[in-house]
Amino acid sequence: MLEGITNIKDINEQKIVDQIRALGIDMIHEANSGHPGIVLGAAPILYTLYAHHLNIDPHHPNYYNRDRFIMSAGHGSALLYACLYMAGFNITLEDLKSFRKIDSITPGHPEYLKTPGVDMTTGPLGQGFATSVGMAIAEKQLEAKYPNLIDYYTYVLCGDGDLMEGISYEAASLAGVLNLNKLIVLYDSNHICLDGETSKTFQEDIKERFTAQGWNYLLVEDGNNIDSINKKIEEAKTFSDKPTIIEIKTIIGMYSSLEGTSKVHGSPLKEEDISSIKEKLGLRDIPFTISQSVKEEFELIVNSRCHNLNELFLEKLEKEEPSVKEELSYFMNQKKNIDYKDLFYDAPENKIESPRDTSQKILNSIGRNNPYLLGGSADLFAANKTYIKEAGDFSNENPLGKNIFFGVREHAMGAIINGLSLCGFRPYASTFLSFSDYLKPSLRLGAMMNLQNIYIFTHDSISVGEDGPTHQPVEQLLMLRSLPNMDVFRPADANEVIGSYKAIFEKEMGPSAILLSRNALPILEETKANEVEKGAYIALDTMRKPDGIIISSGEELHQVLIACRHLKEKGIELRVVSMPNLNRFLEQGDDYKEEILPVEIRKIVVEASSSYSWHRLIYNPKYLITLDEFGTSGNYKDIYKKYGFDATSLEEKIESILK
Amino acid sequence: MLEGITNIKDINEQKIVDQIRALGIDMIHEANSGHPGIVLGAAPILYTLYAHHLNIDPHHPNYYNRDRFIMSAGHGSALLYACLYMAGFNITLEDLKSFRKIDSITPGHPEYLKTPGVDMTTGPLGQGFATSVGMAIAEKQLEAKYPNLIDYYTYVLCGDGDLMEGISYEAASLAGVLNLNKLIVLYDSNHICLDGETSKTFQEDIKERFTAQGWNYLLVEDGNNIDSINKKIEEAKTFSDKPTIIEIKTIIGMYSSLEGTSKVHGSPLKEEDISSIKEKLGLRDIPFTISQSVKEEFELIVNSRCHNLNELFLEKLEKEEPSVKEELSYFMNQKKNIDYKDLFYDAPENKIESPRDTSQKILNSIGRNNPYLLGGSADLFAANKTYIKEAGDFSNENPLGKNIFFGVREHAMGAIINGLSLCGFRPYASTFLSFSDYLKPSLRLGAMMNLQNIYIFTHDSISVGEDGPTHQPVEQLLMLRSLPNMDVFRPADANEVIGSYKAIFEKEMGPSAILLSRNALPILEETKANEVEKGAYIALDTMRKPDGIIISSGEELHQVLIACRHLKEKGIELRVVSMPNLNRFLEQGDDYKEEILPVEIRKIVVEASSSYSWHRLIYNPKYLITLDEFGTSGNYKDIYKKYGFDATSLEEKIESILK
Repeated sequence: MLEGITNIKDINEQKIVDQIRALGIDMIHEANSGHPGIVLGAAPILYTLYAHHLNIDPHHPNYYNRDRFIMSAGHGSALLYACLYMAGFNITLEDLKSFRKIDSITPGHPEYLKTPGVDMTTGPLGQGFATSVGMAIAEKQLEAKYPNLIDYYTYVLCGDGDLMEGISYEAASLAGVLNLNKLIVLYDSNHICLDGETSKTFQEDIKERFTAQGWNYLLVEDGNNIDSINKKIEEAKTFSDKPTIIEIKTIIGMYSSLEGTSKVHGSPLKEEDISSIKEKLGLRDIPFTISQSVKEEFELIVNSRCHNLNELFLEKLEKEEPSVKEELSYFMNQKKNIDYKDLFYDAPENKIESPRDTSQKILNSIGRNNPYLLGGSADLFAANKTYIKEAGDFSNENPLGKNIFFGVREHAMGAIINGLSLCGFRPYASTFLSFSDYLKPSLRLGAMMNLQNIYIFTHDSISVGEDGPTHQPVEQLLMLRSLPNMDVFRPADANEVIGSYKAIFEKEMGPSAILLSRNALPILEETKANEVEKGAYIALDTMRKPDGIIISSGEELHQVLIACRHLKEKGIELRVVSMPNLNRFLEQGDDYKEEILPVEIRKIVVEASSSYSWHRLIYNPKYLITLDEFGTSGNYKDIYKKYGFDATSLEEKIESILK
Repeated sequence: MLEGITNIKDINEQKIVDQIRALGIDMIHEANSGHPGIVLGAAPILYTLYAHHLNIDPHHPNYYNRDRFIMSAGHGSALLYACLYMAGFNITLEDLKSFRKIDSITPGHPEYLKTPGVDMTTGPLGQGFATSVGMAIAEKQLEAKYPNLIDYYTYVLCGDGDLMEGISYEAASLAGVLNLNKLIVLYDSNHICLDGETSKTFQEDIKERFTAQGWNYLLVEDGNNIDSINKKIEEAKTFSDKPTIIEIKTIIGMYSSLEGTSKVHGSPLKEEDISSIKEKLGLRDIPFTISQSVKEEFELIVNSRCHNLNELFLEKLEKEEPSVKEELSYFMNQKKNIDYKDLFYDAPENKIESPRDTSQKILNSIGRNNPYLLGGSADLFAANKTYIKEAGDFSNENPLGKNIFFGVREHAMGAIINGLSLCGFRPYASTFLSFSDYLKPSLRLGAMMNLQNIYIFTHDSISVGEDGPTHQPVEQLLMLRSLPNMDVFRPADANEVIGSYKAIFEKEMGPSAILLSRNALPILEETKANEVEKGAYIALDTMRKPDGIIISSGEELHQVLIACRHLKEKGIELRVVSMPNLNRFLEQGDDYKEEILPVEIRKIVVEASSSYSWHRLIYNPKYLITLDEFGTSGNYKDIYKKYGFDATSLEEKIESILK
């Protein structure tokens, strides 16, 4: 192998770049679908990064201290796969031929865990950019903790579209505040977006924008010049105080007859265009023809820098203290739970506590000394109660701080915790439930990657009160329940908050959301922490066959219990089922379900949230006491009354329904 | 009235400002809830704006050519209401005393149509800022169209929180591109957010940030100085090429013992603090004590500029051509439908057309000459097919252009069409259904204000194909259906697309979403445009009592019809119900529902989307052929097959279910 090449400096790098270009457009042609513009335009950028900078181990794509690379412009998947193939990752030519075909490892946009070397799922613009900030935060903390072991860079390739999305500004702003100097963004600047020239929509002074946010800005005028790109990445790595964006001017669809136009962005090229491009590049005009020696040259360049990085890392790790080994191996492990046996909960004497306060106690008891839990709030620490006391605030000066101040940036927060998860943390994010809407796109991506994120959403219903309808969630609980993979808890009181966290900490996979009332509520006799994991249980039962069953969750359970006690005095005996997690209950066996909710007994649901959640349990809308309209401003007691969720209204309604 | 005041220059304006401050903190104290920080800090800003700049008519708060004012920092509602009261709007002292109480006209955050003088609902940060861009776009187009009549400014009061939200950058970036010089943002810059000093989260150079985005930047060093604020607003109005942000340095909670800290942001002040503030301001320490003469002085100042503006405007309008009068009166009318009688639809000869293509034909036939329809795409014109041909692109140079290039800014797009609606347009926004997540917060606000927005979401299911799970909606259809006030259409073919638009154009209130497949589909014999408005109808029926009923929507209807024809050959006779609008069907009378879906016949739903939508029609999950997992990349035919939505799989499943 590699006979005749004695010095990697003799390698003709341009040939490698051009072969990547040809492969990429062949893949798109074969798939009859894809984005050739970025392949032709940005190939030199990706090549330079993989050849000369990325510390990776192609044979161990999950090598833990690898430099992370995120293709934020996810439509550049063909370019990425072609590059990974050429660099020696475990991807075959057949895989490239299966690009965008069903069940291939080369899907239309990069997908986490599907392709070796793909560090996250991208496609929705801006998400990759923002997630990189989470990876860089993770690095800063891990490097401070394990200085001998961890020192990776996080690189991003992004396009104009990424930089137009609001999430990119939010994330960049925070990256500037946190001095994330090991974050390097390569901006494929071609001034073309799907609808034409960006002059119509995007005229920002990129240098000024990023310097205003505390970044370094570098410029490469000729994006086809490997040396220039190389030097600027070198320069970016020398900065010790700020993240860096390198604007690299490229020509979209270079060498195509459509080069420099939006027409080359998102449709396969015509055959004659492909032939003409290959002729210009001096390549044979046969699809997927590659020169094995050119591939080997690329592999040689990568290996000359990165030989055996994974093994060397594991050797170094082996020499560390057992505690470090154990701790870090947990970070390296994809499936993980949290040891909650240290969970200490001190109930208040008066047995009254708002669920958000219970949550804070639990987070504090588990989180302070747990190295994996890391998170914060989108400027609502005081309201969400997610601050871990005496654990420090994360910053450049205090990289071991455990509280991240995300600012009023819910969307970036969602992406950043995706990044933290992808680096092995079990992160949490918090805001009001109503504002979970702001992070939905990143929430979805976290669920799609099945990351172990924890979302703490407080102020979980109209019982928010005075702040009014904009702050009162109605349809958000359903949004979370209907999101694949999301595990949604809405505990009623301190007992169920504890049970919810136990269930969440025990999980080895997937995201969880815990929805908490803001209001002070009694700690109930009827609730049971250990039953929460099953989704539902009998909180209050009757001695005889019940006249009906009331199913409820969260704060409404308290009103239901009061109503049912009153009804008992009237001779109406009701079972009350607390259902803090609807989907978990639905996954229980039929026996358990029948035990809790016997078919022959009538059931009523009480939940101040969209009725859509409940029809699978209750067919007849008559039996649903739910909420399908926006709330209103007022004291929460008045609001509960107005919408019929106070104990008195419930008592009347339940009695009249069961009549 | 106003005896002794011969010259408004003699008025002591500081007294007015201080009375607004006192009123605001009294309101919050009475409500025991609210945000005193901004009341004390930003009162001089709001006063200066209302006293010396806003062209308004307090007796006609909806005067059409009024300057718009948006309190983007919606938590400043007490300040706004106090100011409106003092300026002479129809708000009483009793209303102020009912602040944040149920059913009052002074809710916790400003609400559209609830309080005279409130131009939009605000509260979720960033939304007001971004919506103002829509109001300024509306102004630019209307001024170009009616230069004698329309020339309003749009003003915004925003805080640090608004400027941290991604949507504010998106909207500002577009405002810069479009040279919206009549947009003036007053930035209450106090360097405090809920979690403490913004230095922890927000260190941007605001001047640099906004100049990078094509704005003018002005600075007022002393936010307590009415003259300085006044002069800078004057200066902002002289600019003819760019929007302007005026950074006004204030002290949050000024005069309070907590001034300058986050503690004064969101909780009522203590009584002794209120007393001390009033002492400093030279005011009597009795709640809600106001000096009537001070209020009259404020009214005098406003009236000296704004006397009878509404009447003068109507007089001018009366002199215009009848066509102008008619057109503008429609803009001024809140409830409106669109005349769709000119709807011209030319079916392709081969009777095959993708719903998005039909949509484009309809938009073009109605939209080109209709002055009220105005909209665009978030950089997906070519894919959404929402471009109106020969109608021009909206820009500073072509303010009459009817196509708005929003850029890759879905969230700002959502807010901007809210702004267009609030100024009388019937706007539309378009992107992929999967990315409807990006605009959910503004979508929700549009639904809450019950605006007549039209959302055109294409690429409406896993049938997107190769782009894979990030681009394939699963839970979004349910998200839209569960959003109060939202009217959701998912037409199956060209006939139903026409029917959907008819139903949408006929509406006099509320938002609508139309979800369209990207794929070329036959125009069916079985579909009926005129039946769409009822939500569902029988597309295919049997001669005898059916063996079952298949309910379907959108592209899946095609596969269902094929499957049912095959099953008929096997002797299984099925009715097929097309249900392009589930919620509309649910609102039909029982007779119609029973006619379409008789109780005694078994029903199966086929829809490639979350099952949560359908349990209210079908209790037993066995009868649901729906999708509760993320999709995958591949050809759409392969994907339909993989998830069981192709005709062959459906045939098998339906047969086996009905067995």
